[in-house]
Amino acid sequence: MELLVLQSDFGLNDGAVSAMHGVCKGVHKNLDIHDLTHGITPFQVFEGSYRLFQTVKYWPKGTVFVSVVDPGVGTPRKSVVAETKTGHYIVTPDNGTLTHIKKEYGITAVREIDESVNRIDNSGDSHTFHGRDVYAYTGARLASGVITFENVGPLLKVEDIAEISIKTPEVSTGQIEGTVEIADVRFGHLWTNISKEMFEKAGFSLTSELEATVAHKGKMYYKGVIPYVRSFGSVEIGKPLIYINSLLKAAVGLNEKSFAETYKIGTGPEWSITFRVAGSEGGRSMQTDEKIEI
Amino acid sequence: MELLVLQSDFGLNDGAVSAMHGVCKGVHKNLDIHDLTHGITPFQVFEGSYRLFQTVKYWPKGTVFVSVVDPGVGTPRKSVVAETKTGHYIVTPDNGTLTHIKKEYGITAVREIDESVNRIDNSGDSHTFHGRDVYAYTGARLASGVITFENVGPLLKVEDIAEISIKTPEVSTGQIEGTVEIADVRFGHLWTNISKEMFEKAGFSLTSELEATVAHKGKMYYKGVIPYVRSFGSVEIGKPLIYINSLLKAAVGLNEKSFAETYKIGTGPEWSITFRVAGSEGGRSMQTDEKIEI
Amino acid sequence: MELLVLQSDFGLNDGAVSAMHGVCKGVHKNLDIHDLTHGITPFQVFEGSYRLFQTVKYWPKGTVFVSVVDPGVGTPRKSVVAETKTGHYIVTPDNGTLTHIKKEYGITAVREIDESVNRIDNSGDSHTFHGRDVYAYTGARLASGVITFENVGPLLKVEDIAEISIKTPEVSTGQIEGTVEIADVRFGHLWTNISKEMFEKAGFSLTSELEATVAHKGKMYYKGVIPYVRSFGSVEIGKPLIYINSLLKAAVGLNEKSFAETYKIGTGPEWSITFRVAGSEGGRSMQTDEKIEI
Repeated sequence: MELLVLQSDFGLNDGAVSAMHGVCKGVHKNLDIHDLTHGITPFQVFEGSYRLFQTVKYWPKGTVFVSVVDPGVGTPRKSVVAETKTGHYIVTPDNGTLTHIKKEYGITAVREIDESVNRIDNSGDSHTFHGRDVYAYTGARLASGVITFENVGPLLKVEDIAEISIKTPEVSTGQIEGTVEIADVRFGHLWTNISKEMFEKAGFSLTSELEATVAHKGKMYYKGVIPYVRSFGSVEIGKPLIYINSLLKAAVGLNEKSFAETYKIGTGPEWSITFRVAGSEGGRSMQTDEKIEI
Repeated sequence: MELLVLQSDFGLNDGAVSAMHGVCKGVHKNLDIHDLTHGITPFQVFEGSYRLFQTVKYWPKGTVFVSVVDPGVGTPRKSVVAETKTGHYIVTPDNGTLTHIKKEYGITAVREIDESVNRIDNSGDSHTFHGRDVYAYTGARLASGVITFENVGPLLKVEDIAEISIKTPEVSTGQIEGTVEIADVRFGHLWTNISKEMFEKAGFSLTSELEATVAHKGKMYYKGVIPYVRSFGSVEIGKPLIYINSLLKAAVGLNEKSFAETYKIGTGPEWSITFRVAGSEGGRSMQTDEKIEI
Repeated sequence: MELLVLQSDFGLNDGAVSAMHGVCKGVHKNLDIHDLTHGITPFQVFEGSYRLFQTVKYWPKGTVFVSVVDPGVGTPRKSVVAETKTGHYIVTPDNGTLTHIKKEYGITAVREIDESVNRIDNSGDSHTFHGRDVYAYTGARLASGVITFENVGPLLKVEDIAEISIKTPEVSTGQIEGTVEIADVRFGHLWTNISKEMFEKAGFSLTSELEATVAHKGKMYYKGVIPYVRSFGSVEIGKPLIYINSLLKAAVGLNEKSFAETYKIGTGPEWSITFRVAGSEGGRSMQTDEKIEI
């Protein structure tokens, strides 16, 4: 049983995902097909990119991922397969979906899918579901060994892969500025691109208090002083906490409540977050949990 | 590993679907179980029928489908297994779920499930979950070879299968009238029962403009002139398009926006749609995207 | 292929569940992984407990379940594996998740997970996702035979397992008082902890009428006279019915409509329900379907 993992923004409430599973099983019955998620917000390539980062390295080497968040289906955007430094393969439109994998893990090689061979026979009249006709089909062929990575198509330059720009965090003693990249959907905690190492470099120590500021294009959505603790249960229900999440990045949340909903905070490259040692710069007069609107 | 695909209106948020998976695994561990969708709108048999049409032919021949949209559970409606011309099997209450499969692909034979043998032992006190006690169990036995199609029970006449009435599209030069059968749930595009061949017969050509009208029981919900193009990216974001969808039927949508939600359009046999060569009949004064209420 | 079934309150819209699947596949490729549900209401341990009861016995003996509804992650709550009298294993935080399994089926033995061996290597800096780092990993090792039940860790006393208190139903001739434990999410029927045997003991007979009363902390939410019938189709659409559900417990619903939503009724240990032979106590003047607010 070879591993194939599918992701999309199709949702699970119609037949699209099942058609993809069926195509894969038609390529080779011995495929072991799993779903990463099909709940990516429609057209949100950045979210799809993040979910690959969140999961790929927990799967055995050689696992093939198919990611279809493809607002440009039927236009000349490229279709590619990337081989990652972690030993996985990702089949996807070349539209930014590889952003996090390239930055966090690295990509060894990328090939453009040659649709003259890697496309379901007689599917040429269908221009709106390459997830089924090209990506699932190619992923299944690669995972099952019907084709090799070389058979995907011609090599592209790794530096030419489409990427979504995310600011690198700025770290200094006592302060870090980064980005709120994503939330864990069910719980509404804010996940940043600031690593545990950066927290250590800035001199933040567990159980100390940090001032956190979240802003979007210059407008502040949250400013408050929050304890940096180990996990949710370290604070009372409804209270804020800063913690290192399961990907070893800094996160901000409320215990058993949604921080994102409570403060109407979104995620993505335009949402900045700053952590600072509390009281480190001038008089601190604000209270934990206080909300400021400018 | 033999293939078994399950569909229902049970949703994924309680234990119903998992109980069905467990029953199947109890019949034979070697079954390879997939979910078509469990997000059928509760009690909407027509939707269940469409999702089978959307997916069945993408699965290998011999795949057994179990579809449980069963508002009549515990009443005398029949339980059947249909063998399709495409070489698949469908286990379902005989309540209209086979409508599309019969019309689009054809049914070779249908048998009534003999519950004296094809029902979980000692489940007779349970009258509200035949999905678990009868359908999943029978589907698993058939898929795994514990029983043959003949062992399901007595033959019924294919012409006696319950069907939901859908009007056949009317095609003439420059005009087609059909039905909005369904939407792709996450995106809100309208999928019609008008085929690509009908578009060709009517003389509609790619990149031309067509006037589209959507109505429900005589009330118009949309009238506008829309370009007939290849895919979403052929028009600007938010703009309407007519295209041939992944089942090679005509569809209407907005690029990266929901047509169904925007114009409050539903789906099913009572939602009619008409395409006409734009400007072909008298002066055309309406603008693309315009909405009319009568 | 050994069976492993996962449950959580993580939802399916981000990467959490897929990371768990990947970890399991990394333990042993031959695992056959299924999802019970990941739609447990966040932090609702009682709901997680019920869904295990609803499904476990439909799976083959030896199946390993992993249930992660874990608001106390990162705090000193214990992590355990229970062996049930039905021959299944359940990997879970010891926080009440085993309540129904213990009461309805019985638990043979319970062991505390020794995280010095049963935890992903080098995951010690991650304190918020034991579902991935401890529970899925341990469940996969147990299901695949990498470890035995004895290798999980030291035995605990079964009587020390955390339980959520639920009142035992009170049965007398012509009357039963019990609890509305849960609803079937998609349909909104109320599922009680009153068994078919209790209905028989109380002398309730099929097709008779019963007075049902639903209350929360002394406040009445519903009172009405309802026929006790076999299944939904025994009453007209929109009308109430009492029936024996698929777990052979008494339930109350509306045919093709949500009882829970219609009368704003919740579920859990604080929601009481009483059934009484209609007209058995003084003059009965209320009509079927009538709603009373006190």
